[in-house]
Formats: sequence, C-alpha cells, structure tokens
Amino acid sequence: MGIAIIGTGITRFGELWDKNWEELVLESTKEASESANLDLTEIDSCYVGNMNLSRFEGQDHIAPRINEILGIGKVVRSEAACASSSVALKLAFNELELASLKKENKVILVIGFEKMTDRVTQNATEILASASHYDTEVINGATFPGLYGLLASRYLHETNAKEEDLHAVAIKNHKNAILNEKAMFRKEINLEDFKLEVASPLKLLDCSPISDGSASLILTTEEYARQLDVDYVKLECIELATSSISLAKRNDILVLDSAKRASETAYKKAKISPKDIDVIEIHDCFTIAEILNLEACNFAKRGEGYKIVRTLEPYEEINKRKPPIPYLIDGKEIYVNTSGGLKAKGHPVGATGAAQIVEVANQLLGRCGKRNVDCKIGAALNIGGTGGSAVFSILKRPW
Amino acid sequence: MGIAIIGTGITRFGELWDKNWEELVLESTKEASESANLDLTEIDSCYVGNMNLSRFEGQDHIAPRINEILGIGKVVRSEAACASSSVALKLAFNELELASLKKENKVILVIGFEKMTDRVTQNATEILASASHYDTEVINGATFPGLYGLLASRYLHETNAKEEDLHAVAIKNHKNAILNEKAMFRKEINLEDFKLEVASPLKLLDCSPISDGSASLILTTEEYARQLDVDYVKLECIELATSSISLAKRNDILVLDSAKRASETAYKKAKISPKDIDVIEIHDCFTIAEILNLEACNFAKRGEGYKIVRTLEPYEEINKRKPPIPYLIDGKEIYVNTSGGLKAKGHPVGATGAAQIVEVANQLLGRCGKRNVDCKIGAALNIGGTGGSAVFSILKRPW
Repeated sequence: MGIAIIGTGITRFGELWDKNWEELVLESTKEASESANLDLTEIDSCYVGNMNLSRFEGQDHIAPRINEILGIGKVVRSEAACASSSVALKLAFNELELASLKKENKVILVIGFEKMTDRVTQNATEILASASHYDTEVINGATFPGLYGLLASRYLHETNAKEEDLHAVAIKNHKNAILNEKAMFRKEINLEDFKLEVASPLKLLDCSPISDGSASLILTTEEYARQLDVDYVKLECIELATSSISLAKRNDILVLDSAKRASETAYKKAKISPKDIDVIEIHDCFTIAEILNLEACNFAKRGEGYKIVRTLEPYEEINKRKPPIPYLIDGKEIYVNTSGGLKAKGHPVGATGAAQIVEVANQLLGRCGKRNVDCKIGAALNIGGTGGSAVFSILKRPW
Repeated sequence: MGIAIIGTGITRFGELWDKNWEELVLESTKEASESANLDLTEIDSCYVGNMNLSRFEGQDHIAPRINEILGIGKVVRSEAACASSSVALKLAFNELELASLKKENKVILVIGFEKMTDRVTQNATEILASASHYDTEVINGATFPGLYGLLASRYLHETNAKEEDLHAVAIKNHKNAILNEKAMFRKEINLEDFKLEVASPLKLLDCSPISDGSASLILTTEEYARQLDVDYVKLECIELATSSISLAKRNDILVLDSAKRASETAYKKAKISPKDIDVIEIHDCFTIAEILNLEACNFAKRGEGYKIVRTLEPYEEINKRKPPIPYLIDGKEIYVNTSGGLKAKGHPVGATGAAQIVEVANQLLGRCGKRNVDCKIGAALNIGGTGGSAVFSILKRPW
C-alpha cells in the first residue's frame, strides 16, 4: 500500500493585487479540502513550502502564521528556492510512509505559495538571485536570467540547437495554458514575438514571469483513502537530490545532475522508464530549462533534448494545433506541461512544486477538462535555482 | 529499538569575526563526525536548520550550498525561527524511524547554524522581528525584546514575582557558562549589573545576545549504532507543536501553549513525568522565557515558575556556589541550562535547537567535563518566536 493524494487546490496564478498571501493560502487549501471532502479540522499536520516570504513580505516563521490561518497544530516549513513545496511534499510523504507502516490514519496538508508582486522593497530578481551562490555568483552580478542565459549559450554552442528551438518550448506552453483557467498568460505567442532580449540568447518570452499564487495538496495513506471512500491518485514515489549550487562547481554545466539523480532513483523505485510516462510537468523557469530537464530525466541524451522540441516543427504552425500539444518521443506522444508550465501558467516560486503535482494528479483523475489527456502514469520534475535541488515525483492511477 | 545520537559537534558561540558561516558549519560537523568515528561520505542525508541566512548574508537555498561544503547528496532546509534546527532534528527523526521499520542502515546529519554579526545590512533585531506577526506586530514597531517585555510585565503584574526573580535566571546561567568553553559569555554577573533597560521590565542582561555559531548532530538507528559499536544516547522522542504567532491571538498570554502541548505529548510517549528529568536545556532567549517555559513544561503551575527560581535565594549569593547550579523542584535537584543557556552560551538562532541537544547528549555521555552532572534522563525545549513553534525532546542513556 502506498501514499494517496486525495485533495488538490490551486489559485489562479498571476499579479494578484487584490489578494494577500493569507487569502491565497486559504483559497487553495479550501479547494483542496473540498475536493477531498474533508474538513480542515481533520488535518493532522501541514508542510508548507515557501522560498522567501521574509524578503518579499517581511514575514519569517511561517509555520505559526499558517496555524493562525488554518488552525493546524503541527506545521513545518521547508525552503529549497523554487523547489520549496516539492520538498514539503517529500517530507509529508516520509511522515505518511511511517504512518502507513505503523497502521496510523493520518491526513497531511501540503501548501506551496509565494507572493512576489506586493510590497517588494527589493527588486524581485534580486531576491530570487539569493537562490544561487551568493558569494561568487550573486556578488558578481549574476541573476537567474543571466545564469540560464549562460546555460543556453553553452547549449547552442555545443549542439546544433537554435534559438528557435528555445522559443518553441514557450510557444507550446503558452498554447497549452489557453485551456488552463488558472494560468497567468492565456494567449498565443509566435516566433516573431521573441524580440526583447533579457540575457543573451534568452528573450523576454523565454523567461517565466514573477507571479503570485498558492497550491495545496491533501494526502493520506492509501488504506485510509479507501476507508474515506474518496477518489485518489497514488504518489508512487518522490525523490530528492541535492547538487552544487554554483554553475562553476558542476562537472558538466549542461547536465543538471540533481535532476538526473532524482529521476533515476524514482524510475528505479517505481520500476518504470521515462517512456512509460504519459504526462509530466517539467520545470521550465526558462525555455532552456525544459530542454535540459528533458535530458536530465532521460527523455533524450545529453545535448539532444532540442530534437524532442523539433517534433513540434514547423514552429510557425504550432499555434494551428489543438492544445494540449504533445512531444513525440521515440514514437510516443508525451505531454509536457499541459498546465502551461512555469512559463505560461506562472511561477510563484514556492507554489510551483505543489502546483505541478496538482496538475498531474488532476490529469490522472480526469479533472482537467478540455486539456485532459489520456494518461495512466504521470510525473513532475521541480528544481531549485540552476538545479542545486531537484525533486522528481511519479504518480499513478490506482485503478 | 529507537533512534541514536552518535555524534555531536559545536563551535564556540560568539561574535566570530574571523570565521564565515561555511567554516562554522564545517567545524561543528567535523567535530560531530569525529565523535561518531564516521567519515562524511558515510552520511546519507542532511537536515539543516537556519532562520534567515537570506537576510543576514544574502543566501537563500542553503541545501545545495551545504552540498558544496560537505558533499552530501540529499539536503533539506527547515525554518522555524529560533526553533529551526529542532525542526530539522524532528525531520531526521522521522526519516530514521522509517529506516528502522524498514530495517535500513541510515546515517543522518543535522546542522543548525546562524551567522548574525557579519554584513548585516539591516539591524539584526529587525531581521529577528520577522519571526513575529509581521502585519500586526512588526509593522507597529514590535521587536522581540518588546514582545517579551510585554510578557514579563504581565507576569510581574499577575504574580508575586519581582524583577530580581528574572535577573536570578541570568545570574545562574552566566555562572553555569563559566564551565563551558564554547560559551559566549563566561563571566559572573550580579544583581547590581542589571541597570540598562531594554524593554521594561527587561534589562539588557535579561536578554540573550546576537551570536554566531553552528552545532551538528549525527544520528542513526539504534540497531546500526550497535553495529558501529559507537557510544550513543537515545533520542527517545521529539515532539513538535505549532501555535499562533501573535501574542494577541493567545487564549492566555502567559501560557506558551505550543511548549505545553509538545512537552505533554513527549512525556506521554516517553512515559515519564517532568520530575524524572535530571538535566534540561530550556529556551531562555529572555529570562522571562525560562520561567514561562518551566511552567509550560509542567515543572510548575501557571504563575508559579518564579518559585522554582527562588530556590536559588539569596540571589546575592548565587555566585558563591559552585557551578553548574541546579534548581530545587519538589525536593529534587534539576539542572536547567548547564551550558549557560541562550542567555550566556549565546543564541545564534538557527543553531540553538541543535546546540541544546549537543549539551544534553554530552551530559548523558559524561562528556561535559567539570560541568557534567549525574544524569540519566535529559530533555530540551526549543521555541520559535514568542512560542509560535515549540519542539520538546527527551534523551535517555541506553545503559
């Protein structure tokens, strides 16, 4: 028996000026508890992932504030930059595995959120940069667009990929987001829109946006999920890996080592190969990240991820297709970022990991409406920074 | 079988201008691995507790920086203000309990650290205040000395306690710290030194200092500790409780509800009562905190903790006694803060929880030199903020 996701909730992602972070947390959590048909009082403990409420909003010590909002008596906060709420989910998974072995009925809430657009005393990009190596990267002026710009430069230099291959990732994800009412950007973009350069070779539209949002998950043991008689998906496994934080310390700058290790361990545990996956949310904070992460998750060899993107060719015609748009990987249609991804759904950093799982769980449960695809096995890859942290999850239908 | 602490390490606490935070982490971790007779390569995963490296030093996303320093492939960071590393320990405990049930041999490193004196762009007190309710307390000018000043005021108003009872806590803890070579303040203080007022009725010497420091623990399952043939103490249980963050939301401002719940649960699990404890590190960020926490941990009834302190009378003569100095609780000598406590050992906030466990483990192992007391059962209470978070641990000799 395993771990069950019985509730999912997510706010709209975007510049949500009319809501504060507490309202966002409450909104996604209410949606999750309603979908699980559970009252908040039935929750035993909570893990909350948030990157930096302290610098965005002045508030550290998030756990007891969550207690004030939701009344939960045991709350733990984890931080791993953009992978903060995936780490929270991993911790919840550990606690539930223990509960399952001890034959305890336990219900755990996982929340991921970030409020990035209000009261920013510092530039948001400057706050986010704190997730790279402060003393060598940040202090010398690095930002995340800059660091991913370096990765993209090197990738274009070493491989036959072209800037258009990067842009095609964004065009696909924007197209997918049109069917996601919670997404931040629900409009098509085209190759000719990639004009404004942010960090060569990355254009503005190669970058995910600064967003507000919250996502919540309710989990329990499979045994208890059956007792509760609620629909659920199995969180088959969730694997965490930590790597060096700075690009300079990587053996191979183009291999996101943590994502590679996390996914390999997960595949082994779940006894599946990448090709068994039908739908996956892959961390695409920048378009180059989706390509590097496709490689790290073993959908392609090093330096060949762009060839997967090329299955969308001709890029001028992506928008003529009906979303969600799959990649063709070794002859199989695999859906990557049906939600729109970080690129178009939005990237409230602490929320992203939980939001990915919300999407994949809802795909498996058939709750994604017009963007639902035929799927039995789903996955998610969430990374922090330039890949210093990675969490890879595999979800399955129990039926 | 249970969970074993097999290694402990701690740096000197203080204004450590000559060392950066990475050197501190490395120093305490090397000491811990040497005491466990293990190489760092034998560590499977790491939990690190830190409050706010992001605002003190610019660095978020601590996990992959720890990877760069120590080479560990799985690192998780937790934050719960001053209870950050106790939460890390709790998470390590969960993972080891699971390993024990699965019959896996696993070694986990727990680190707590804070570097509070370097490169502070903001006032340290302002950064720390982020652990109270930002939108109601901080924004109206509250700081922790101010909030604890309110608690102390109310305590003196409701009970027969006097300011001298607060000061006596500090005099005892300073006296104890004389025997602790890692302590920040190793000098006696006397009643007449309590002149400078910080937040009425708290004087400067009622407050713990701003400090740098790191503490490390190495844990494994008891089964594996025996295989390794290493001395260890049992971490019998560790309980976390979360309460409201703001004083205004407490049912009874003088009852630290989270500490009460965490300790009650721990007593039940370990099947002991407070009087079975021989030595305990109790969170004394301010002198009033030691008194309120003695009550919360059920060493005294509400409003009567000061009577325990009065067993040190006459206060003018505390310094004539040989440290460490016990309280007399219902006729039993119980040692509270043999390390000198946060007050005199120092309070690098993220390090404090792990440091408390280092002290208690070393007491039980007989490794505290001249300040070692006769003990079989030890405990630690670490709280975050004004008690929004609390973690209570019980340690036992296995022999």
